[in-house]
Amino acid sequence: MDHPADRAAEHQGDSVKERLWRIIFLADSGAARAFDVVLLWLIAGSVAVVMLESVRSVEDRHGELLHRLEWVFTLLFTIEYLLRVWTVRRKSRYVLSFFGVVDLLSILPTYLEIFMTGSGHLIVIRILRLLRMFRILKMAHHMGEANLLLRALRASRGKISVFLFGVLSIVCIEGTLMYLIESGQEDSGFTSIPQAIYWGIVTITTVGYGDIAPVTVVGKILASVMMLTGFAIIAVPTGIVSAELHRELDAVRMDTRTCRECRHAGHDPSASHCKMCGAELPESAKSEPPGHA
Amino acid sequence: MDHPADRAAEHQGDSVKERLWRIIFLADSGAARAFDVVLLWLIAGSVAVVMLESVRSVEDRHGELLHRLEWVFTLLFTIEYLLRVWTVRRKSRYVLSFFGVVDLLSILPTYLEIFMTGSGHLIVIRILRLLRMFRILKMAHHMGEANLLLRALRASRGKISVFLFGVLSIVCIEGTLMYLIESGQEDSGFTSIPQAIYWGIVTITTVGYGDIAPVTVVGKILASVMMLTGFAIIAVPTGIVSAELHRELDAVRMDTRTCRECRHAGHDPSASHCKMCGAELPESAKSEPPGHA
Amino acid sequence: MDHPADRAAEHQGDSVKERLWRIIFLADSGAARAFDVVLLWLIAGSVAVVMLESVRSVEDRHGELLHRLEWVFTLLFTIEYLLRVWTVRRKSRYVLSFFGVVDLLSILPTYLEIFMTGSGHLIVIRILRLLRMFRILKMAHHMGEANLLLRALRASRGKISVFLFGVLSIVCIEGTLMYLIESGQEDSGFTSIPQAIYWGIVTITTVGYGDIAPVTVVGKILASVMMLTGFAIIAVPTGIVSAELHRELDAVRMDTRTCRECRHAGHDPSASHCKMCGAELPESAKSEPPGHA
Amino acid sequence: MDHPADRAAEHQGDSVKERLWRIIFLADSGAARAFDVVLLWLIAGSVAVVMLESVRSVEDRHGELLHRLEWVFTLLFTIEYLLRVWTVRRKSRYVLSFFGVVDLLSILPTYLEIFMTGSGHLIVIRILRLLRMFRILKMAHHMGEANLLLRALRASRGKISVFLFGVLSIVCIEGTLMYLIESGQEDSGFTSIPQAIYWGIVTITTVGYGDIAPVTVVGKILASVMMLTGFAIIAVPTGIVSAELHRELDAVRMDTRTCRECRHAGHDPSASHCKMCGAELPESAKSEPPGHA
Repeated sequence: MDHPADRAAEHQGDSVKERLWRIIFLADSGAARAFDVVLLWLIAGSVAVVMLESVRSVEDRHGELLHRLEWVFTLLFTIEYLLRVWTVRRKSRYVLSFFGVVDLLSILPTYLEIFMTGSGHLIVIRILRLLRMFRILKMAHHMGEANLLLRALRASRGKISVFLFGVLSIVCIEGTLMYLIESGQEDSGFTSIPQAIYWGIVTITTVGYGDIAPVTVVGKILASVMMLTGFAIIAVPTGIVSAELHRELDAVRMDTRTCRECRHAGHDPSASHCKMCGAELPESAKSEPPGHA
Repeated sequence: MDHPADRAAEHQGDSVKERLWRIIFLADSGAARAFDVVLLWLIAGSVAVVMLESVRSVEDRHGELLHRLEWVFTLLFTIEYLLRVWTVRRKSRYVLSFFGVVDLLSILPTYLEIFMTGSGHLIVIRILRLLRMFRILKMAHHMGEANLLLRALRASRGKISVFLFGVLSIVCIEGTLMYLIESGQEDSGFTSIPQAIYWGIVTITTVGYGDIAPVTVVGKILASVMMLTGFAIIAVPTGIVSAELHRELDAVRMDTRTCRECRHAGHDPSASHCKMCGAELPESAKSEPPGHA
Repeated sequence: MDHPADRAAEHQGDSVKERLWRIIFLADSGAARAFDVVLLWLIAGSVAVVMLESVRSVEDRHGELLHRLEWVFTLLFTIEYLLRVWTVRRKSRYVLSFFGVVDLLSILPTYLEIFMTGSGHLIVIRILRLLRMFRILKMAHHMGEANLLLRALRASRGKISVFLFGVLSIVCIEGTLMYLIESGQEDSGFTSIPQAIYWGIVTITTVGYGDIAPVTVVGKILASVMMLTGFAIIAVPTGIVSAELHRELDAVRMDTRTCRECRHAGHDPSASHCKMCGAELPESAKSEPPGHA
Repeated sequence: MDHPADRAAEHQGDSVKERLWRIIFLADSGAARAFDVVLLWLIAGSVAVVMLESVRSVEDRHGELLHRLEWVFTLLFTIEYLLRVWTVRRKSRYVLSFFGVVDLLSILPTYLEIFMTGSGHLIVIRILRLLRMFRILKMAHHMGEANLLLRALRASRGKISVFLFGVLSIVCIEGTLMYLIESGQEDSGFTSIPQAIYWGIVTITTVGYGDIAPVTVVGKILASVMMLTGFAIIAVPTGIVSAELHRELDAVRMDTRTCRECRHAGHDPSASHCKMCGAELPESAKSEPPGHA
C-alpha cells in the first residue's frame, strides 16, 4: 500500500472526499477516532445479534426485533462500504484486498436472503447468516498494538511448524498402538485409527474430554506415558515463543549507539555517557520510554 | 496517600489515638505485627464460617454454633472498623477508599439480616451473607511481597489484553463453524452459537469438561485443529509474563553502586563510569554470588 | 556417516548410479528436491490409506480401492528401497541403519499378507498392516530444521528425567493416599493403587478425563492440593526447555565474525579483540537488525 | 553433617566396618555404585509388590507369592538398616535423621502385622501396608542431579506462595458467586460453597473433570471468564521458575575473571584474551565444560 502521507497529498484537490477518507482510513484526528469507536460498537452489536438469532428461546420471543436490528446494521455497514469505495483512490485495490472482501461479505448475506425465500434454500441461508460472524475480523483494522506479538509469532513460525509436525507424528503412532490395544474391548471408544488419533490429540494437549478413555491396563499405561510426554513437551512451544518475545523486547529496548571514544556498544537507552570510558554519548534517538512498548 | 512518616508526625499530639493508629495501620512494631496476625486468623475463621453455613449437613447439625460465631466475628470486625475510623485523620478518605468499603461490607450484611426477617427476603439475605466472603480481600492489606508479580502483570497488561481479544476472536469464528457443522446432529451439545463459543473456550484453555463434545468427523477434525492451536498459543501469555518478570528481576538485581557525582543508581555491573555524568564509579563489590539473591 | 562431499567424489566413476544417489540421498539440486516432495506426498497418502482401512464404514464401501492403492504405494516404496540399496556404496551400513530398517518395514507387511491367508492369522495380519503406519518416520529424513529443537531437548534431557521421576514419586505417594481415602466408598473409581496412580497422572498433567474422580470431602481436598501442585510444577519443564532454547538461540545469533589470525568464530557482538588470540577483530557488521532474524 | 572425607578418616581404625560404611554411604567405588544399583532395584520391586497387592484379581491369584516376596524385601531392607546403624559412627544422628526414619518405616509395618492378626485391626494393617509405599523416598538418596531444580524452586518459593494464595482468593470469590448463581438449579453440582471452590480449582488449573459443570447461561459466562483468567495466569508460575532457572544456569556458566588491563568483566569461560583490549586473561578456574551443567 502507498504511504498514508502520500495519499493524503494526492487527495488534496477534493476537499470533502479527502476529509472523509482521512476519517475512515486514518486515525489521526478526533473525528477519525470517534468513527473508529462507533464502528467497533456496531461490529460488536451485529455479532451479538447473529449469536442471539441462533438461540432458539431468544429467536422465538424477540425474532422480529433481531431481524430489524440486523437490517439496521446491514444498512449502516453498506453506507460504510460505499463510502470506503467512493473515497479511496485505487478502488479495485481496496475491493480486492483482504479487508475489502471482508467488508463486502459482512453485508452481502442479508441482501441475498431476500432473493432466496424458496423452501429448498434453508441451509444456504443459514450459512450465509453465520458468515456475518466474520465481521469480527473487521476489528483487526483497529489493533495496532498486536504487532509485537505477531512479529514474535512469525519469527517462531518455522520452529512451531516443526514442533506441531513432531507432535502429530507422535500422536499418529501412539494412536495406532492404542487402537491395536483397545479396539478388541467391548464398548471401547477406539473404533478406528482416526478416532484413536482424535483421542491422542485430546490427551496430549491436556484437554481431556473423557468421551473416549482407555479401559485396559496396557492402554492406561500407554496413555500415562503419553500424558507425561505431553506434559514435558508443552514446554517446547512456550520456550520458543518466550525466547522470541525476549528477543523482540530486547530489540525494542536496546540502544544502537556506539561510544565515539572506545567504540563500546550496548548502552542503556537512558545513558548519556559511555559506561566504559566515560566519554559523552550521542543523544539517544528513541524518544519513546522503554517501559511503554 | 500521604507518607506514613508524615502522618505519624501529624498525630503526635494525641498519644493513645496515635499509638492505636500505628498498631492498626502500620506494621513497624511488635504490637502492630501481632494485631495483623490476629486479624488474619479472624478473617480466615469468618470465611470458614460462611463456607460451612452453605453445607446443608453442617448447617443442620451446627447451625446455632455457626450463627453465634458469625456474630462474634461481626462484632470484632465492627470494633476494628470503628477504631480505624476513629484513629485515622482523614476519615472520609478512608471510608471511601477501596479497603474502607470492603471493611464496611464485611460487617453490614449481618446487621441487615435483623431487619429483614420477612419471608420474602430470603434470597436477598442469602446474597448478603455470601457478600461476607469478600472479607478475603482484607487479606490483601498484608501482602507486601506481591509487588513484583503485580508490577510484571501490569507491565504486560496491554499485551495480555490484545492476546485475550485475539483468542476470543478465534473462539467466536471456530465456535460458529462448529455450530454450523454439529447443530444438525441428534443430541448434539451445540444448540446455539453462544453454547458453541462456551465449548470453544472450554477447549482452547484445555479445561475440557466433556459436557459438550463434537460427534461428527468434520467436527472432530476442526476441534483437533483448535486444540493444537490452543496448545501452541498457550505459550504466548507465558512468554509475555516470563519476559516481563525477567526484566523486573534484572532491575532488582542490578548494581547497587551510586555515582559519587550525580548520585545516579542502577548501573550495569560491568560499568566503570557513570552512564549519566561520566564520573568514575567505585569498584563493583560483587561480593554476593549471583545465585544467592 | 562419511561426509556427503567425499561420497560424491567416490561415486564419480559411475555416472548414472551417482546421479541417482545424489537425487535420492542429497537435496542439492532441483531433481533431488522434487524427489523429496513426491516422496513426502506418497508417505502421507499411504498413511491415510492405512487409517481409512481401519474405519469400518469406509472399508465396507471402498475396501477394494484402498487395497489397490495399498499395492501401488507398496510397489513404489519397493522401487525406492531397491534404488537406495543399489546406489548406496556401503550397502550393509544402510540396510542396518535406523532408516534402512524403517524403509524395509514399510514394504514387508504387505508382501507377508499374501503368504498368511489362513484363517488363524488374522490378528498377526492386522498388526502387520498397522506397522505400515511407521512410514511416518520416513518423513524425519526431510526435517533439517528440527536440529535446534532437538539440541535444546537433548541438553535438558537429564533435568527432564529428574523432573519426571520426581513427578512420578509424588503421584505414587498421593495415589496411595487417595486409594486409602476413597477405596472404601461405594462405586468409587479408586479400585486399586495402580488405578489411583493412573488417576494421579491424569490429574497432575491437567488432562482430567473425569472417568475417575474423588467423591469424599477429604479426597477432594487432597485432589485440590495435587492440582495446585501440578499447576505450579508445570512451570519446571517449561523453564528448563525455555532456558536451554535461549542458550541455543543466543549461540546461533552470536557474531558471525571470524578472527583473521586464529580463525576462531563465535565472538560477542561487543568484542573488539579475539578472545582466543587477542588479535584485533574486524568491525562488527550489525547490518541485520536484531528483530529480523 | 560432617564432611565425608573427615568421616572416612575417623573410621580408619576399623577396616571391615569402614569398608562397609564406604560402600553403603558413599558412591566412590565400583562396589559402592553396585550396592546403590541393587538397592534401587529392590526398592522398585518392593513398591511394585505393594501396588499389586491392592489389585484384587492379582491378589486372589498370586497372593501367596506376593506375601513371600514382601518378606524377602523386608528381610533385605532389615539387613540394610542394621548395617547402616552398625557402620555409622554417630548412630543416634542417623536413626533420627529423615532417611533414618524412612528406612525404619520401610520395614516396621511388615513386622507389626504379625502381632495384629485380630479381626478388629484390619484397617490399621492396611494403612501399615501402604506406608511401605514411602520406600520410594529412599530413592531420593540417589538423586544428586536434582540440586539445580531444587535451588530454582527454593529461590522462587516466596513468589509461588504469594501466587498460590492469590489463586486461592480468586477461586474462593468466584466459587461463591457460582454457588449463588447455580445452586438454585435442579441437579446442579454446586451444592455448597466448598463444593463450588473445588469446582473452581478443577477449572482454573485446566484439569476439568466434568463431574461438576455450570448449566445456567450466567454461570457459563462466569466460568468462561474464569477459564480465560486461568489460561492467562498459568503463565505466572512458569515465568517465575523460568526466570529463576535462567539465573541458576547463568550463575553456573558465568565467568568471574576480570581483565588485568582494562578491568572488563563478563568474559566467556572459554576466552583466553580480553574481548575489550586483547590482553591475556588469567586461566579460567572452571574445569567443567559449560555444556555439562
